[in-house]
Amino acid sequence: MSGTYDPGPQIAQVGGINLGTKNLESSLWFFRDVLGMEEVLRDGQTAYLRGYQELVHHSLVLTEQSDAVVNSYSLRTQRPEDVELFHQHLQRQEIDVVELPSGREAGRGEAIRFLLPGGDHPFELYYDIEKPLAIESLRSRLPSNSSRRRGLGVRRIDHFNIQTDPGRINHAERWVRENLGFKRREFAKFADSETIMASWMSVTPQMHDLAIVANSLEKSGQLHHVAFNLENFSDSLTAADVLRDLDVSYGTGPGKHGIGQAMYLYVHDPGSDHRVELYSGGYLILDPDWEAIEWKPVDFPEGLTWYGDPIDTVPGSRGRDTTNSAPLRPDSLAS
Amino acid sequence: MSGTYDPGPQIAQVGGINLGTKNLESSLWFFRDVLGMEEVLRDGQTAYLRGYQELVHHSLVLTEQSDAVVNSYSLRTQRPEDVELFHQHLQRQEIDVVELPSGREAGRGEAIRFLLPGGDHPFELYYDIEKPLAIESLRSRLPSNSSRRRGLGVRRIDHFNIQTDPGRINHAERWVRENLGFKRREFAKFADSETIMASWMSVTPQMHDLAIVANSLEKSGQLHHVAFNLENFSDSLTAADVLRDLDVSYGTGPGKHGIGQAMYLYVHDPGSDHRVELYSGGYLILDPDWEAIEWKPVDFPEGLTWYGDPIDTVPGSRGRDTTNSAPLRPDSLAS
Amino acid sequence: MSGTYDPGPQIAQVGGINLGTKNLESSLWFFRDVLGMEEVLRDGQTAYLRGYQELVHHSLVLTEQSDAVVNSYSLRTQRPEDVELFHQHLQRQEIDVVELPSGREAGRGEAIRFLLPGGDHPFELYYDIEKPLAIESLRSRLPSNSSRRRGLGVRRIDHFNIQTDPGRINHAERWVRENLGFKRREFAKFADSETIMASWMSVTPQMHDLAIVANSLEKSGQLHHVAFNLENFSDSLTAADVLRDLDVSYGTGPGKHGIGQAMYLYVHDPGSDHRVELYSGGYLILDPDWEAIEWKPVDFPEGLTWYGDPIDTVPGSRGRDTTNSAPLRPDSLAS
Amino acid sequence: MSGTYDPGPQIAQVGGINLGTKNLESSLWFFRDVLGMEEVLRDGQTAYLRGYQELVHHSLVLTEQSDAVVNSYSLRTQRPEDVELFHQHLQRQEIDVVELPSGREAGRGEAIRFLLPGGDHPFELYYDIEKPLAIESLRSRLPSNSSRRRGLGVRRIDHFNIQTDPGRINHAERWVRENLGFKRREFAKFADSETIMASWMSVTPQMHDLAIVANSLEKSGQLHHVAFNLENFSDSLTAADVLRDLDVSYGTGPGKHGIGQAMYLYVHDPGSDHRVELYSGGYLILDPDWEAIEWKPVDFPEGLTWYGDPIDTVPGSRGRDTTNSAPLRPDSLAS
Repeated sequence: MSGTYDPGPQIAQVGGINLGTKNLESSLWFFRDVLGMEEVLRDGQTAYLRGYQELVHHSLVLTEQSDAVVNSYSLRTQRPEDVELFHQHLQRQEIDVVELPSGREAGRGEAIRFLLPGGDHPFELYYDIEKPLAIESLRSRLPSNSSRRRGLGVRRIDHFNIQTDPGRINHAERWVRENLGFKRREFAKFADSETIMASWMSVTPQMHDLAIVANSLEKSGQLHHVAFNLENFSDSLTAADVLRDLDVSYGTGPGKHGIGQAMYLYVHDPGSDHRVELYSGGYLILDPDWEAIEWKPVDFPEGLTWYGDPIDTVPGSRGRDTTNSAPLRPDSLAS
Repeated sequence: MSGTYDPGPQIAQVGGINLGTKNLESSLWFFRDVLGMEEVLRDGQTAYLRGYQELVHHSLVLTEQSDAVVNSYSLRTQRPEDVELFHQHLQRQEIDVVELPSGREAGRGEAIRFLLPGGDHPFELYYDIEKPLAIESLRSRLPSNSSRRRGLGVRRIDHFNIQTDPGRINHAERWVRENLGFKRREFAKFADSETIMASWMSVTPQMHDLAIVANSLEKSGQLHHVAFNLENFSDSLTAADVLRDLDVSYGTGPGKHGIGQAMYLYVHDPGSDHRVELYSGGYLILDPDWEAIEWKPVDFPEGLTWYGDPIDTVPGSRGRDTTNSAPLRPDSLAS
Repeated sequence: MSGTYDPGPQIAQVGGINLGTKNLESSLWFFRDVLGMEEVLRDGQTAYLRGYQELVHHSLVLTEQSDAVVNSYSLRTQRPEDVELFHQHLQRQEIDVVELPSGREAGRGEAIRFLLPGGDHPFELYYDIEKPLAIESLRSRLPSNSSRRRGLGVRRIDHFNIQTDPGRINHAERWVRENLGFKRREFAKFADSETIMASWMSVTPQMHDLAIVANSLEKSGQLHHVAFNLENFSDSLTAADVLRDLDVSYGTGPGKHGIGQAMYLYVHDPGSDHRVELYSGGYLILDPDWEAIEWKPVDFPEGLTWYGDPIDTVPGSRGRDTTNSAPLRPDSLAS
Repeated sequence: MSGTYDPGPQIAQVGGINLGTKNLESSLWFFRDVLGMEEVLRDGQTAYLRGYQELVHHSLVLTEQSDAVVNSYSLRTQRPEDVELFHQHLQRQEIDVVELPSGREAGRGEAIRFLLPGGDHPFELYYDIEKPLAIESLRSRLPSNSSRRRGLGVRRIDHFNIQTDPGRINHAERWVRENLGFKRREFAKFADSETIMASWMSVTPQMHDLAIVANSLEKSGQLHHVAFNLENFSDSLTAADVLRDLDVSYGTGPGKHGIGQAMYLYVHDPGSDHRVELYSGGYLILDPDWEAIEWKPVDFPEGLTWYGDPIDTVPGSRGRDTTNSAPLRPDSLAS
């Protein structure tokens, strides 16, 4: 019966991120050799990677460039026609849109690019993407895996957490919900204020595919972290053990979020210095009438850290990992 | 934008199962005291339970009766109006439908009941269900949990696996996909045959919310197992350890399915003798263009058991747990 | 061939601890109902408990009394005659020794009691102890377990960590090594000092059965913590999850020590307020020529916390769990 | 006080095994690249390896040769003088002993070699062994680790399991206990017989450092398996997942032994075809008066497999992994 009516354009999933890096080899050592992602393609100073459970061409693009900015946050649509339908929708809002030809990212079809209203983060929407087999030596015997589990066992991209300034965060968060179909799952406001401190939203049963957090430290438009998914909590512990023993900039973790009930571990890609979360577990939201959970300021610390290495709630209070040192967003739509 | 068009009625999630049991106290010992589910309500010889991550009133109903049949498999719809829309749809197919008043299952609103074409399993569809707080002493400090984790840590219902005869399985499986919106995710056919041996289907990103397997042993209409979800593989190992040490009929496991990549552990409720799977892990299907994975007979054994305690592929070959001893389906629609 | 010569008296293992508690029911709720220890015997206001892998009568005695002091730290000798041999040895050093008759602790044979030179902690040495079967309903089917795994799965006592003042710690630590046969495994000294800050020692291949740490806060003679052993790191995570959700005074953890490579989780018994460590993993020292590992002050923080919730190295720096509120040692040998 | 008397020569620990392999590169791929052991030294067609928690020079020697026999089982003594004391002891029993000069195995001091009475397995005893630092790029920041955890995380050798024929097993088992100081921890006899089917023995608190099992299939003098230790049960699951996906001859597992309560996973080194167990967990025996646990034939299957992939109790009953295809023991003492 479904499909006999048009639900309108929808976002299906987080597609991938295009990270600028000052040192491609260093980033490849981290994501490919340590985290165990597959390098699907190298094209000059650009590399395409995916986790062992991703059948699509890539979820991570590493581009060597002078500024380690995030070049794009990509979302995949539910249907082929949704890319054009979103294009028309954005135009009706007089939002600048750039059309990206097929192949602008290898393996990917036509896409559109725009800056997030209220946040200025460069988003790209696409549907078509190739599903190449891994090279024989890396292939898994399980058809639901694109390659064998290796390294620390990153199996797929999980979510984005992006920063915007408190003055515009409510607008940005609302826009994402009303225009891209994300649902608010858990959130917190500043004390005695209607201003959102953080909001976790999703288009899937994951507790969040996208989080937006307020940041007053001139970090608007910047990534807070990109998360990749591990299979079990025990994988997070093994990752912590191995990463502590390597020359990697270690952030916070492991610990369990009260918000989302997942295990977190934050480290920094040595090539780009961007914060990467290794993420496992969490609950699924299957209830169609889920009511967003609000965290009061008094409970927020345990919402961030239910147990384990505590996440700072006051930037700088602990002198580490409250922000990252990457430069700000691109100044333009040019991609 | 979403919701401006009507997608037609949809199933949102597996809602719950109503298990007949010959010994309610024995079943409560198993599901409540050992598995750690919350007994939300007792009404005469009927008990309502839920996992610690379920906010809704119940996902399991235990009804003491002479025959330990499955009284119903309940699915929750995406929207309130979907119950009536499905009712009209079934009537157009001349399928007998029984209307169940609000409260027929405590905490639940109006529902409709019908027998699965091709399988004769009693399905019920509903939308409204209460979300009661647990009693103070069991309440969790995490708002996404309805109670504290206890016992073996069952957090929610996961899926149904139902049996039907090879002569009608293709019809039943197609009907579920075409009429209830389930998508085929992985499947297998009998050797040199178009007859489906097993099909795993879902309306959510879970690899399966419902599986249908062929059974020639006059088990048509019968449950193969109902699965409840644990947080991590390690919880499956702890459950196996504890259950082996208790006077519980132990089936197969733990082991990891190649199909779905989840960890399984099969045991039997001592009150009803129905097979219960404790299930953890597995991959999520977020790709909108997922192509169903077919398992050839030669690969099927490792599809069932990637590692760990092997699941029999030839009924009876191992002398245990290939079927359960529960009686057949109800003979009528009467509930 | 062994045994044809006399190696002299030896300590075989940590036997148990006798904890004073201001609220026996509250302590029993914690150790028995939450941690899952077996209450082997109740004798008036004294309760005897053991973990599920301990075949001996008890490893924990809870005694309701006005001061929640540690009544004794018990060590079990290698041979029956070692108790008397140690008695003679202590007398040669003119150390006051009290003889405790069989049954002073239920199920235990004759023992001797003395105060640790340099630390004043009340130690008791014994050999004979009964090995009672658990009651039928708790018995395990595994003969190496005394009862079924329950609760958070405490399987045995692991080690003591005791505090003494910096002025006497070197003497106390040396005395334990030279007189009780403990071997120093890892240790740290204060900066620019010969004074030991902490020393981890054992008579078994465990990295430590006994640790002595310096404490300037008038805590000489006091317990820092008593540790109980869990099977896997994953059990520590489950324990943290459950304990955070209960009304238990939570300390620090979980995290992994660099020193010993075990996972720690510190909580407080609500009845006695004594600090209890739930401990899992760690490495075994089987090398006969192990050289004690020294931690320099600069590396000490990561020795305490390799990953996870950081342990304070400067008392009070984090405002929690650096000491506990229990009263000091008993003022006399009277037991 | 200890050490003022002579306890006689003692075995301290399992030192290592020298495995013949028909294909050194294939065995190195398995032990070094997959299991993550460190290749400390290559000397022609001989390679020396150790786990990441072993500070000594090696615990595994791989020697390329035409027959994949076990060249030696090495045990390390408690004291330097014990090697000579054992030599004299063996001579008093008129057992042929070969003296091996320092360096016969690189990094190792003088050793003696003899064939196990009743089993004919080539044993070597030594004390001196170097403790080299790993190369800078592999070194761990934890001083109790010789290298960083890599691959599947093998941290040390754990135990040997050797086969002998039923006619001589009682003699061999008794000889090991009476002459090398091993203690019987758990054991089983054949039905209605005094003949030992299997015996687990140790000189350390591990439940076994050495097991002897009866084998009627002309396997006397042959290895059943050599075990290497992993940190947690979860590491066993990850190992099973990865090894199933590689072209490795997979045996049985994972599962949990009732005997010893450890998790097992049996695979075969592709170069030598010898069976290797990846082993995690288990209980420690600290009680000085441990009474050996006897398993009756009726309980033996669950002693072998408490849960998980069942181990065959009747050789051949399952058509795999009941014996291995390696050739028999060396015919002489020549090493």
